[in-house]
Amino acid sequence: MAVKAQVLYDFTAEPGNNELTVQEGEILTLTKQNVGSGWVEARNSRGNVGLVPEDYIEINPGSTQASSDTQATQYIDAHNQGYNSSSANSQAINENEAWTATTWSNNNPANNLNHAEQEPAGNNGSVYSFDEEWDDDSDDGKSTGGYGGSQVEESGTMQRGGAHSTMKLSLNKFPGFSKTPNPEVYLLTKHISKGDDRLPVYTGEVGPVWLYPQIQLDCVVADPKKGSKMYGLKSYIEYQITPNTTNRPVNHRYKHFDWLYERLVEKFACALPIPCLPDKQVTGRFEEEFIKMRMERLQGWMSRMCRHPVISNSDVFQLFLNYRDEKEWKLGKRKAEKDEIVGVKIFSNIDPELPELDPAQVEQKYEMYSQFTRSMDNSVKELLAVGHLHWKRCTGPLQKEYRQIGKAFQNLSSVFNTSAYPREYTLTEALTATGKTYEEIAEIVAGQPKKDLHFLMETNHEYKGLLGCFPDTIAVHKAAIDKVKEADHLVVMNKISQQDKLIMEKNLSTMSYALQAEMNHFHSNRIYDYNRLLQFYLEEQVKFYETIAEKLKKALGQYTTM
Amino acid sequence: MAVKAQVLYDFTAEPGNNELTVQEGEILTLTKQNVGSGWVEARNSRGNVGLVPEDYIEINPGSTQASSDTQATQYIDAHNQGYNSSSANSQAINENEAWTATTWSNNNPANNLNHAEQEPAGNNGSVYSFDEEWDDDSDDGKSTGGYGGSQVEESGTMQRGGAHSTMKLSLNKFPGFSKTPNPEVYLLTKHISKGDDRLPVYTGEVGPVWLYPQIQLDCVVADPKKGSKMYGLKSYIEYQITPNTTNRPVNHRYKHFDWLYERLVEKFACALPIPCLPDKQVTGRFEEEFIKMRMERLQGWMSRMCRHPVISNSDVFQLFLNYRDEKEWKLGKRKAEKDEIVGVKIFSNIDPELPELDPAQVEQKYEMYSQFTRSMDNSVKELLAVGHLHWKRCTGPLQKEYRQIGKAFQNLSSVFNTSAYPREYTLTEALTATGKTYEEIAEIVAGQPKKDLHFLMETNHEYKGLLGCFPDTIAVHKAAIDKVKEADHLVVMNKISQQDKLIMEKNLSTMSYALQAEMNHFHSNRIYDYNRLLQFYLEEQVKFYETIAEKLKKALGQYTTM
Repeated sequence: MAVKAQVLYDFTAEPGNNELTVQEGEILTLTKQNVGSGWVEARNSRGNVGLVPEDYIEINPGSTQASSDTQATQYIDAHNQGYNSSSANSQAINENEAWTATTWSNNNPANNLNHAEQEPAGNNGSVYSFDEEWDDDSDDGKSTGGYGGSQVEESGTMQRGGAHSTMKLSLNKFPGFSKTPNPEVYLLTKHISKGDDRLPVYTGEVGPVWLYPQIQLDCVVADPKKGSKMYGLKSYIEYQITPNTTNRPVNHRYKHFDWLYERLVEKFACALPIPCLPDKQVTGRFEEEFIKMRMERLQGWMSRMCRHPVISNSDVFQLFLNYRDEKEWKLGKRKAEKDEIVGVKIFSNIDPELPELDPAQVEQKYEMYSQFTRSMDNSVKELLAVGHLHWKRCTGPLQKEYRQIGKAFQNLSSVFNTSAYPREYTLTEALTATGKTYEEIAEIVAGQPKKDLHFLMETNHEYKGLLGCFPDTIAVHKAAIDKVKEADHLVVMNKISQQDKLIMEKNLSTMSYALQAEMNHFHSNRIYDYNRLLQFYLEEQVKFYETIAEKLKKALGQYTTM
Repeated sequence: MAVKAQVLYDFTAEPGNNELTVQEGEILTLTKQNVGSGWVEARNSRGNVGLVPEDYIEINPGSTQASSDTQATQYIDAHNQGYNSSSANSQAINENEAWTATTWSNNNPANNLNHAEQEPAGNNGSVYSFDEEWDDDSDDGKSTGGYGGSQVEESGTMQRGGAHSTMKLSLNKFPGFSKTPNPEVYLLTKHISKGDDRLPVYTGEVGPVWLYPQIQLDCVVADPKKGSKMYGLKSYIEYQITPNTTNRPVNHRYKHFDWLYERLVEKFACALPIPCLPDKQVTGRFEEEFIKMRMERLQGWMSRMCRHPVISNSDVFQLFLNYRDEKEWKLGKRKAEKDEIVGVKIFSNIDPELPELDPAQVEQKYEMYSQFTRSMDNSVKELLAVGHLHWKRCTGPLQKEYRQIGKAFQNLSSVFNTSAYPREYTLTEALTATGKTYEEIAEIVAGQPKKDLHFLMETNHEYKGLLGCFPDTIAVHKAAIDKVKEADHLVVMNKISQQDKLIMEKNLSTMSYALQAEMNHFHSNRIYDYNRLLQFYLEEQVKFYETIAEKLKKALGQYTTM
């Protein structure tokens, strides 16, 4: 069946780039979803085919998820009314499909053997091919990096999971649930977790919070080195990761990060959203550019993981950062892969030292978090779309235009210079300087996005990835609530005892505290991140405008006052 | 025959405006030249029809004027190489047709009775119709203002003579030449001009110059008032013109300016380029806007005329500024219309107290002026084209984009505000302020062209009009040179005497001094105008960037330092 998509934002094609101009509200038929680098190929109603940025469209705008989402949608509709009143956005933006841009599919252990096949093949034209093979000490199969063309190179944006299908995963496809397909297993068990694995939830100033360590773990990802094995037939990049705790560097390849990510998903994803790793598929013509970009993103991912009190304290994460030799690493790997406390079982480690919540309270929190993350996801996507547009404008038409202005002034100066009129000199000199200033401004304008918008885009991409994980995490809670709601009925049917029902409610309360602690962790980080981001962005923007004003002032000084 | 045009600059159509996207070098077929407001309707090679800005195209790029223009073209080609090396521009830009955007056709007395018919009829959609009738004390016929739609309203640009044909007028269609069709009449006569009409040419610091008055005449055009006659059936606008000499205001309607313009063309255009009046056809939906724009342009025209020592001192111009009552005005009008010293006869008033130039020197100057004015015309058109583009960008996509950025930040703030997380306040407040700042920036960006680009465009339009008059003025000199070159042959043929030949050479030298004085006047004014223009533009640009930097700094101050 042809996949349809609705256009969320106007997009004007750059000539010669095989792009398609589309308008907000337009319905497209996707002809190729795996183009890569954040682009899809689509056909409009007039039969024209071309590339459109993935951020600008909403796949399957017609279908909706029924059930309790209606309420959420209504909420968001009301919320969005302010800025969508005159647009056709609100409908499309609020569809559930908006969630699915980041999926778990690439990381589903069941799919691992097909890993390579999931990478988009046949990218366009000028492809930078960089060989990063998988070790043979791993049965992950073989993944060959296929990096997209130069289309969004200038925008610096990268789609995480953008090349994967946008199909919503059902619960039993959830990585953790392949071993523990149902929260019932957890809900019906009476737990007393008092071991080392205990994950306490306290009441902090902001509500339930995780236990934070005295010293926050952090690490530096740096010094990428090309290595090779099998007599140079296979080459790879090894990154040096230095934690602030030991200050002793460890080396890891991308595949090790990917292995860590899979372990974290298996173990924690029912309780904690684990953001995807940066894509294997990266834009960039040059090896150095690609490596730099990946390193930057691995750094971002690692810093986020380090900041998380539960993740950073886990055995597998500690192993990744602190292993002393190959032997310790391999033993640790084997142990982690055999870890039994995965999927919903992780909740049995949660130990909230707090009064039990009744299911209604739990459901209320669930709705709130669901709504919040969904709204923020929409908002982040909006920011990304407009950022993408602005980047393109700065490096494209605006640069060209300031260059043209600069040329026009300089040409006028050249003409004036041929007048043979004796009093020409000061004006032609000043005019030439003005022209050159506008040429400089052209380069400043084109270079600015890399200075400020880049960080804004990167941070929001990171949040887009993170927010994309919440629905699956929250869905576990939703399933648990539904189970507890059934409990009365099950008691009547004698399927469970009254005691079982009380245990279920207690366990649901525990799950809820985990979610609350996680949300508070998210909020705290979010406020920190966006505060820092916006300050940085505005500082750079101020510098940008001041630099231009300064340059123009200097040019102005060359004219004679009459 | 279908009129062809070559595209000089890329132009991207705004959706929904019936515009046509065209690319540099493309050949179009003009389907309607009289669209008005600086637009033409054209068909591209794929059969698409739409509006294109007149400044962006070069009509009849194939045809060239033979003769001595070859040299000029070569010169300009060499000159343009710097900026046209990678474009198809140079050819098109250097064709003689580039001169013809401003023509005399509307002002040819022979056409006066058809005046109204020359106005473009049937303008597009939202037409502002403002009734300005001609008096019945004039036999000028009737002119009804037909003002263009709103398409280039935002650009503030106006095409002078843009609605007229771009046909190059032959000499015998030249207004002056309808009475004196050939410079021979002047060249063969021995003149001694010692009367009040004497126009001396002195040697100034910069070469031959006109005699400048001690106090420079200037005037203020202000206070437009709506009047009516014939029991209100006919209404008109009367402007108040106050010269700095008498400080006594006189009232004139547009038709009086037009009458003055025609007299000046008749009398002086062989020696002095007389710039066209601002078009009757003006963009603008509202009466006040239209009147303001016309007044501003009449002011510009009058100031330029006042600055000219020959024009400002002429009887007809003095009459226009100083008449005391209706009787004096009518008598003066009649006298001016009967003036015999028109066309090439004006040269008989020129009195250069300077050594006679030989014809070779004269021809050299002629080539130089021809080349200079042609190059400057190209350069001015380039500046207008890029200015037009920039205006469109600022008031269109850029404004929209900054608004979107503003909205995106504010929406994110609204979402954050719903988190129920206790430490939200400072960030959401700051984010909202940031969003509002970008919305303000959107309005500043969109409003800026009216503040600075407007003056740049107006001045360059004025120069485009003025430069468009030079070819016809210079052509008179060219014809005279050709006559003098024939003189030897004519002497042999006994058609003229040796004495006649010497008189012709002396008269040619006189004509050359007039042209030199005029060019020096032009250069002096040009340097003054562009110096003032660029200073003003840069000052406003500096303010613009500083204002934005200031606003962003204020928004930045709202974030907490962490």
